[in-house]
Amino acid sequence: MPAMSDSRFKALTFDVFGTVVDWRTSVVAELTSFGERHALEADWAAFADSWRGLYQPAMTRVRNGERDWTILDDLHRESLETLLEQFNIVGLLAEQIDHLNRAWHRLDPWSDVLPGMTRLKREFILATLSNGNVALLVNMAKRAGLPWDAILGAELTRTYKRLPEAYLGTARFLGLEPTQCLMVAAHNDDLVAASKLGFGTAFVARPTEYGPSQTQDVKAQHKFNYVVDSFEELADMLGA
Amino acid sequence: MPAMSDSRFKALTFDVFGTVVDWRTSVVAELTSFGERHALEADWAAFADSWRGLYQPAMTRVRNGERDWTILDDLHRESLETLLEQFNIVGLLAEQIDHLNRAWHRLDPWSDVLPGMTRLKREFILATLSNGNVALLVNMAKRAGLPWDAILGAELTRTYKRLPEAYLGTARFLGLEPTQCLMVAAHNDDLVAASKLGFGTAFVARPTEYGPSQTQDVKAQHKFNYVVDSFEELADMLGA
Repeated sequence: MPAMSDSRFKALTFDVFGTVVDWRTSVVAELTSFGERHALEADWAAFADSWRGLYQPAMTRVRNGERDWTILDDLHRESLETLLEQFNIVGLLAEQIDHLNRAWHRLDPWSDVLPGMTRLKREFILATLSNGNVALLVNMAKRAGLPWDAILGAELTRTYKRLPEAYLGTARFLGLEPTQCLMVAAHNDDLVAASKLGFGTAFVARPTEYGPSQTQDVKAQHKFNYVVDSFEELADMLGA
Repeated sequence: MPAMSDSRFKALTFDVFGTVVDWRTSVVAELTSFGERHALEADWAAFADSWRGLYQPAMTRVRNGERDWTILDDLHRESLETLLEQFNIVGLLAEQIDHLNRAWHRLDPWSDVLPGMTRLKREFILATLSNGNVALLVNMAKRAGLPWDAILGAELTRTYKRLPEAYLGTARFLGLEPTQCLMVAAHNDDLVAASKLGFGTAFVARPTEYGPSQTQDVKAQHKFNYVVDSFEELADMLGA
């Protein structure tokens, strides 16, 4: 465990959904409260899981070039309309659907995130490297108090992770080599993709991201530079 | 003078060089200290003014399409090499020139900026809308403690101000209409360009930006939404 700040790294680049914010708890709460306000009944946890379930297939069509670059807010909105139909929820106004779609702008961080980031920010540039679009990430940060130095990632590189340009373009915007960036994520495949390009890697375990019966990404499955259970432990390991 | 926060605006978008930071004083100080370290003599104020003088012509070649998109760090570096030759300064190593070029990453804010931004940040999204590249603006903010919510502008829109896409693309990244953004700048032409696209406008007088004998942009020459002498006065006017 290094006692001094790991000086190879100038910037920490973060996955956001799952790593920084507990999207599932927040989205289920948003859906439940939406249901109460509009007198709608549904299995909101199943709705949230289905919404997230449509996330990768929607991005895949953009990654493939099957469709032009489309920001995540728009992909979320299309998935939401599909699910409202599937769950037989009808008669909502466009602005009500818009508000619900922006539930993804109102996600709460895990409890270790703010104290950890506050320490890490003293030693490193903290940047998002997320598939979320800029407005989503800015609004989320503003509401939750996330002290980012820069909001970067998919929208600015016009490429969704895990494609290389999402990572390489983010490092380039920061004026850094990939080897000067430490990718922080709760997902093995995100870190493997970053690592192949020269990024350092920090796995943060989020074993309840997908709910109580999570099976994927419960722990680190590869050799990463750091493997921790919280952002505060990462700050300890990095000497921040 | 409105007593409550001006709720038309969700975001304040800021010009940076001259408006947020006193580039001339900082660059002259950097050049002077560089000269002392390397036993070089020159009129460093004239050098700084010449360096800034090459800024618009360099961007014009990009705006015209005479050359491909090039970030400001690279334009600054080319101008610096031209000036070193012109001032008969020879024999510097590439890394010494790089360090000097990054003087633009180490500019100090005007004294009203941090207290003003701290108040404004509570009510509005604060984003750069600068011709500076992302790394320059991130490093500057990190060193000076500028609490941006987002680093946006020319590099991300691949367009230098005063071309429309620099403004429109920045509003689009924020998920906002131009009318929901208030452009804050010390330069009349920047505000006029933003205003034509629907942005609100706030002129902040910086009458010594170009040194003691400044003649341009000494005061507001058009009707703007706000005309102030400091960021703290802007916070007063906006009820923040």
